[in-house]
Amino acid sequence: MTERLLVVGGDAAGMSAASQARRRRRRDDLEIVAYERSNWVSYSACGEPYHIAGDIEPIERLVARTPEQFGEMDIEVHTGHEVVELDLDRRRAEVLDRHTGRTFATGFDQVVVATGAKAARGNIAGSHLHGVWELRTLDQASALRDVAAARSGNAVIVGGGYIGLESAEAFWRRGWNVTVLTSGDSVLERTVDADLGDWVVESMAREGIRVDTGVRVRCINGTEHVVSVGCDHETIPADVVVLGLGSVPEVELAEEAGIPLGQTGAIAVDDRQRTTIEGVWSAGDCAEVRHRVSGRKVNIHLGTVANKTGRVAGINIGGGDARFPGALGTSITKVCDTEIAATGLKREAAEAAGFDAVEGSASGTTAAGYWPSTADMRIRVVAERGSTRILGAQVVGGPGAGKRIDTFATALWAEMSASELAWADLAYAPPFSGVWDLVHIAARRAAEAARA
Amino acid sequence: MTERLLVVGGDAAGMSAASQARRRRRRDDLEIVAYERSNWVSYSACGEPYHIAGDIEPIERLVARTPEQFGEMDIEVHTGHEVVELDLDRRRAEVLDRHTGRTFATGFDQVVVATGAKAARGNIAGSHLHGVWELRTLDQASALRDVAAARSGNAVIVGGGYIGLESAEAFWRRGWNVTVLTSGDSVLERTVDADLGDWVVESMAREGIRVDTGVRVRCINGTEHVVSVGCDHETIPADVVVLGLGSVPEVELAEEAGIPLGQTGAIAVDDRQRTTIEGVWSAGDCAEVRHRVSGRKVNIHLGTVANKTGRVAGINIGGGDARFPGALGTSITKVCDTEIAATGLKREAAEAAGFDAVEGSASGTTAAGYWPSTADMRIRVVAERGSTRILGAQVVGGPGAGKRIDTFATALWAEMSASELAWADLAYAPPFSGVWDLVHIAARRAAEAARA
Repeated sequence: MTERLLVVGGDAAGMSAASQARRRRRRDDLEIVAYERSNWVSYSACGEPYHIAGDIEPIERLVARTPEQFGEMDIEVHTGHEVVELDLDRRRAEVLDRHTGRTFATGFDQVVVATGAKAARGNIAGSHLHGVWELRTLDQASALRDVAAARSGNAVIVGGGYIGLESAEAFWRRGWNVTVLTSGDSVLERTVDADLGDWVVESMAREGIRVDTGVRVRCINGTEHVVSVGCDHETIPADVVVLGLGSVPEVELAEEAGIPLGQTGAIAVDDRQRTTIEGVWSAGDCAEVRHRVSGRKVNIHLGTVANKTGRVAGINIGGGDARFPGALGTSITKVCDTEIAATGLKREAAEAAGFDAVEGSASGTTAAGYWPSTADMRIRVVAERGSTRILGAQVVGGPGAGKRIDTFATALWAEMSASELAWADLAYAPPFSGVWDLVHIAARRAAEAARA
Repeated sequence: MTERLLVVGGDAAGMSAASQARRRRRRDDLEIVAYERSNWVSYSACGEPYHIAGDIEPIERLVARTPEQFGEMDIEVHTGHEVVELDLDRRRAEVLDRHTGRTFATGFDQVVVATGAKAARGNIAGSHLHGVWELRTLDQASALRDVAAARSGNAVIVGGGYIGLESAEAFWRRGWNVTVLTSGDSVLERTVDADLGDWVVESMAREGIRVDTGVRVRCINGTEHVVSVGCDHETIPADVVVLGLGSVPEVELAEEAGIPLGQTGAIAVDDRQRTTIEGVWSAGDCAEVRHRVSGRKVNIHLGTVANKTGRVAGINIGGGDARFPGALGTSITKVCDTEIAATGLKREAAEAAGFDAVEGSASGTTAAGYWPSTADMRIRVVAERGSTRILGAQVVGGPGAGKRIDTFATALWAEMSASELAWADLAYAPPFSGVWDLVHIAARRAAEAARA
């Protein structure tokens, strides 16, 4: 008998699961139908700021596969369709067709809940006004691109995380006057320590992007359309406001269906992406994962994790045996030619996870010191006292700095010590690094601190 | 009583050893004197082609530390002085002052033999002619820079290794008409497989640099100055010839002193850089190292290894306890915007070392496929059948490709399997990679091949 797999949410996790399941089971064995409430599936949310900036046109280039292409793989995809209720006992879903406003019921045997995350809204008065945006979906990106391209004026970005800074750069590159407001001590605080975040602030300031840290936004002013943003001591004129206040897992549907959530507030799954309910899987931003360093359950909203967990779910649904090996939270971005990347735990997070943590830092250059286009770089390594085991790393610097984080991510993956990494046979030539890469030097300093 | 350390050879290995020994032992405990036969110490040989090309001026920028700076560290350095004989029983050295042509004797308690490597000369008739060059020392680089800058004409490069290709690009950038001749099937054959080497050949050809593979150079013609290079079927006009025929360890002094050599022909040392003779150390290009993958002794001529082995020797002489953890032969270069890097063993080398080896390859892009400046990239992973243990990797591609080798080098360092690396939490953002980095995809394919 043909089984029916329902996929709720058609972005990275859901469509990875669908694709992997299909690779292993043919249509007469497994029917696969995916419902996505937005108008797009399988798209790169990480590419959205670059569409706004004008780097990537048309927006369809951000789409990895269209519903038609999934159709050719015998995966039925419906955009503009939202699963509004899951009855897991009767294995029936209620689906809202957003084009017609009508709902209908559909049956399934197994389901992948891949509802993702939604923007955290905060409690700012006036955030309902026209001209106040979030940036998560491709529809929002498309609209923001039109806003950014149509004219220029004052853009105020609330939030100093990835989306905030990338949006700020996009508007700046479109010729807008840009102000970033964040309550934090610096920017990218979930990624790097404040002194490294300040490198980013300075590189933005050099380009004329104002970044105000330690600022609380009290209200957004306007009657119909936004006019200004009110902070503690100042009112800043604004023609556009982008709220980058972080994201929270989208778990309402799952919760109402009785799928247990974990302590993080995201859907609890095992390393095969199974919830506690037979035939009910979850993957992506809405699901928990195990952090490989702390060993704790965490909820990480990154495309890498979504793709991997979706793949694991799909392999298992397809009859294979895959386990998600855990996450390090490795992430990277680029703001005004400054590259910022991190993996594992910052020192405070390591201490909160019970480690006796030390750190070692090194400042230097991306290439040989005498290389014409060499750029400044700074690396910090967090290590466990005694063992020198690497617990995390942060990299900030010019072109070529960021992807060095993969060396640390690989070292973390293998639970290497800083003492070992300090001698690793990394590649050297003058256009690429010093003969001792800054990776070595930071690792050595962390090892020295850990043995002190 | 003050001990006396003699350092023979004042480049990376020798001066690293001297510096580390000095950090641990004060002048009244250890006197350190280094003799270097050329006019330079502690310089970046890897930077020489870029001086010839005009990227790095003046040549002094390639010097990490001058004799005067070493003097301030209480390390006595004499350039233009060659140790021509070592009497290890009597602990006396005979030193030739090349400025005066006179020799003198000097005593020592311990000695670091860091004589490096010399260019392999080959057997080409006419290689004594004016206008035929090698490129190893800073003096040669300085002279070649003047040749390249003074005029332009026909440059013929014999050899398709690092030095050959980097010299070729340097002369090409100075406006010369450049031909590279190599007997190999492709270029960089010690580093990458021929199909990957061909990427480099093609990128050079696109810029107008002719690369002829499978060509045997029979003679260099001219009366006093070179006029042409004779190959099997052709005579190529040449105003300058650069011979890049590889390098061999400089071990005559050591051999005559009775220091045992290993099977590679280089000086045999243990992992503390001790020869079999008490108080006699060796490091750098003239010494053997253990290959971490094959477990065999090898002789690798790379600045990274020279710096590390010199450091190990110096720490141990200084009373510390350091062991050289082995080498992977990780290397990287850039030719005409194509980056080439490798670590560990190629498949044939792995098989020669007794492994049942398979490989997985992946072609893709350095950044997200839709990223404006994304470039082609190809990665090959060699793995052990069954265990999927990674044995080696090769990377070729546009800007951003090369340093990915460090991810593999770290994985090799930790003896990771391709199956593990295929799921590692590497960094993703559109300017830096696809959501699955090509590293993942190549590792996954190698793992699949290894399990097949």
